[in-house]
Amino acid sequence: MSDITPTDPQEACFEAGIKFGSLYHQFAGTPVSPSSAASVAQAMEEAIENQPHCVDVTVDVDGDRLAADIAEGSASYTELTGRFLDVTLVIEYEGVRATAEMELVDGYPLMQLTAVEDIAQ
Amino acid sequence: MSDITPTDPQEACFEAGIKFGSLYHQFAGTPVSPSSAASVAQAMEEAIENQPHCVDVTVDVDGDRLAADIAEGSASYTELTGRFLDVTLVIEYEGVRATAEMELVDGYPLMQLTAVEDIAQ
Amino acid sequence: MSDITPTDPQEACFEAGIKFGSLYHQFAGTPVSPSSAASVAQAMEEAIENQPHCVDVTVDVDGDRLAADIAEGSASYTELTGRFLDVTLVIEYEGVRATAEMELVDGYPLMQLTAVEDIAQ
Amino acid sequence: MSDITPTDPQEACFEAGIKFGSLYHQFAGTPVSPSSAASVAQAMEEAIENQPHCVDVTVDVDGDRLAADIAEGSASYTELTGRFLDVTLVIEYEGVRATAEMELVDGYPLMQLTAVEDIAQ
Repeated sequence: MSDITPTDPQEACFEAGIKFGSLYHQFAGTPVSPSSAASVAQAMEEAIENQPHCVDVTVDVDGDRLAADIAEGSASYTELTGRFLDVTLVIEYEGVRATAEMELVDGYPLMQLTAVEDIAQ
Repeated sequence: MSDITPTDPQEACFEAGIKFGSLYHQFAGTPVSPSSAASVAQAMEEAIENQPHCVDVTVDVDGDRLAADIAEGSASYTELTGRFLDVTLVIEYEGVRATAEMELVDGYPLMQLTAVEDIAQ
Repeated sequence: MSDITPTDPQEACFEAGIKFGSLYHQFAGTPVSPSSAASVAQAMEEAIENQPHCVDVTVDVDGDRLAADIAEGSASYTELTGRFLDVTLVIEYEGVRATAEMELVDGYPLMQLTAVEDIAQ
Repeated sequence: MSDITPTDPQEACFEAGIKFGSLYHQFAGTPVSPSSAASVAQAMEEAIENQPHCVDVTVDVDGDRLAADIAEGSASYTELTGRFLDVTLVIEYEGVRATAEMELVDGYPLMQLTAVEDIAQ
């Protein structure tokens, strides 16, 4: 077997990335206001949890950042973008758990792997 | 004033169309299963109700059509598309109410204006 | 026939709205840079021209606004949003031509009907 | 350093996944016909190549599968979905190259890592 064949931990990380890209680009652009933030967050969680190997997704829309953005414009809502989101997702693939998060780093919503663990006994 | 200037009823219909195109193309492709259908439907309603002049949106994901589609494939979920959706939306613009619906017609999810009414007294 | 039945000009305006909502929410969030702006603009035009009754779509991504936005951040690209777009689209439906545009008005990308004309002879 | 800290190859695979999820969920649902397939494919390639660490993206829309799908319906176009796509993408991250592909496997568009290589000298 070639040494370029992906390992199970690498596959778990690939799956984590797929879920993050899906979550972001499916829902970016959704009209969102303080009163609708909870429903889009729940829909994001449940939608991505459908995908293979995805055991948990947690999405928070940051109400303060959302309200600040809306206050800058003339409308009562804005478009969902990564700057409003705090996301954690957990993948389990062949005995490996990969955890990834998105949070604001220097004003940019950064997706990051935070842990890759062997959970097989 | 030129006779090509849009009237209020025409503007109301334009707004109804915007909401329908937004709803469809924002959410088409979302991973969906019987257990997540309710949350995506609620998110669609609340997201589009944020948009100007939109007073009501009702979205139903048809559980039977969804289950039938999933049964055809090997996964436990599918992608949201218009064939699974029954939608009604109501616009009010300058004393005019426009109502539009989407439903399956010959297997194709057709968006249709159903009524344009003067609601000013 | 009820007076709430939509007229052909109203239907043309509804179709124009559908195309605008589709265009916006399909492509909002796309990673875009000065070098990729032309390809996404062309894809938007050709995609929406596929839709029924849509005879012409013109999309310009404003290079200055795009460059200014990218200069504010730390990345070499940004996400496509309405503030970068100038769009014109033309619908023909049962002898009626509806023209609609999107442009920046007070910092907000406003979709507007600009003309509704009888083109039947 | 904890053994749960992601390695560079794992990070490269995470990045590859992000790009795949982004590409898919940004463009799924786009109206597409044989004549517009080339422009959406080019837009997909150039959009995703903007993202960090992404050195190459190749997208083909399979004309035969597209034509067959359109022939089944009553419209002259359809919606872009993974069944029509063959995609290869290449990530380079800290001396590691990860290559991933999407192709039809048993009627399902499967995203797969195909190689993870050390390219540092």
